[in-house]
Amino acid sequence: MFLNLEPLYSSIVENIKERVSKLARPPKLAAVTCQPDPSTLSYLRSQEKQAKRLGIEFAVYEAPKASDLKLLLPKLSADDTVNGIFLTHPLPSDISELEAVSLISPEKDVEGRHPISLGNIMYDNPIFPPCTAEAVLRIIKYVTNPSGKRITVVGRSVTVGKPLSMLLLQKGVDATVTVCHSRTKDLAEITKNSEIVVVAIGKAKALGKEYFSSGTLVIDVGINVENDEIFGDVDPSVAEICELTPVPGGVGRITTLVLMEHTVKAAEMARKY
Amino acid sequence: MFLNLEPLYSSIVENIKERVSKLARPPKLAAVTCQPDPSTLSYLRSQEKQAKRLGIEFAVYEAPKASDLKLLLPKLSADDTVNGIFLTHPLPSDISELEAVSLISPEKDVEGRHPISLGNIMYDNPIFPPCTAEAVLRIIKYVTNPSGKRITVVGRSVTVGKPLSMLLLQKGVDATVTVCHSRTKDLAEITKNSEIVVVAIGKAKALGKEYFSSGTLVIDVGINVENDEIFGDVDPSVAEICELTPVPGGVGRITTLVLMEHTVKAAEMARKY
Repeated sequence: MFLNLEPLYSSIVENIKERVSKLARPPKLAAVTCQPDPSTLSYLRSQEKQAKRLGIEFAVYEAPKASDLKLLLPKLSADDTVNGIFLTHPLPSDISELEAVSLISPEKDVEGRHPISLGNIMYDNPIFPPCTAEAVLRIIKYVTNPSGKRITVVGRSVTVGKPLSMLLLQKGVDATVTVCHSRTKDLAEITKNSEIVVVAIGKAKALGKEYFSSGTLVIDVGINVENDEIFGDVDPSVAEICELTPVPGGVGRITTLVLMEHTVKAAEMARKY
Repeated sequence: MFLNLEPLYSSIVENIKERVSKLARPPKLAAVTCQPDPSTLSYLRSQEKQAKRLGIEFAVYEAPKASDLKLLLPKLSADDTVNGIFLTHPLPSDISELEAVSLISPEKDVEGRHPISLGNIMYDNPIFPPCTAEAVLRIIKYVTNPSGKRITVVGRSVTVGKPLSMLLLQKGVDATVTVCHSRTKDLAEITKNSEIVVVAIGKAKALGKEYFSSGTLVIDVGINVENDEIFGDVDPSVAEICELTPVPGGVGRITTLVLMEHTVKAAEMARKY
């Protein structure tokens, strides 16, 4: 069956609204885009709608070249009216992901991409974990207690697989974690022996029923567009034997909320200084 | 059988000596200790001996209180004659590990304890990984090609288990990695199904032959002192069926060399500025 994440979604929305209402002024999220093409701008408009609904200000900045980015990110980092900085993909080819995110102040790194944000997770001190990784953890905890469970993460990206594995190993979460990827042998043997499987590989319907034992909790992180349709990394038929998150409307929907919640958290932290 | 790490040890020593000889002046490692008791000072003397043998300057600084540490670490970080900073345990009770290591400049974080150093590993850009984690990776690569192998790490510390799992997932290393810990169920089932097992739990002779399939490569990170004798985390009888690193003289010996190598690397990087 497909998991119904509505109650989780609603509870996060309520929590955000309540926290925003306690702030002296609305939190502000600055979205930086290097490639302001129609599809990116349409994506940003949907983020803006979500932000406004929650009482969060949203402003879009364009930085087409690496040199623009190198001026803009430190400027927004120093701007007291900005609480969170959000950087869309793709980046200009002459700046690396690591170089770009290192220009964002860790206090405003609401996407959790700065190396300090990632390192803090290993210290069991996740201030801003990557939003998708945190969304997956929230969903798992919403469904079950991960303590002692065998959880397999398929995919080793710096936005999902790696930081998620560190979140799952935190004291108090206490999962036993395996990370698999394209070089893994006998993937199905490993996923079949897991109580929870998270799939984040970016390939439409790549994992079918043959990869899962019945009753497994399967979190599908994939958002793949093919012929104007959106597909997850997991074949929908897996829902016949497993608890599966839907795509669209699953992890992605919670991820957007986590980004907004991080912006509120950044605003709360800024007030303390 | 016990692994003979002498050729690996010698090759690292040779590499360090050659690199030191190319520097304009000897690299300098600053050791900071908060509890200068006889056992800590004796440990530091052995480190100093190793440093001198390799042509590395070694100076000991005492900072008994948190307030001393808060002055000393930024001062050493700003001191151009210091290339690496090394902080012994235990710390004063009124400063956290994370707070203390965050006072060390990432460019001099030769122990790999700053959150930036840890986050950089997730970006497949390990500048200074924690020395023990790097020593284990070196030993594994010395014995075999880890690509596609099932490696289980027992222990989830911020100095070994967590960063080692990230090192093993790097592109080009490509292991399939499972991290286990005190909350793991059926540990033996997992370790028996692994081609390589790394044990870093800090309990003398905790894992015996019943945990391993014959022929497994077992890396014993433990250094436990009991009645003036040193024991690993793995029972020595495991060497009858597995390839096992010796304790003492195994991982610990390579770890000290990695600390020295990182100091040389920091000096090489400083010369570029």
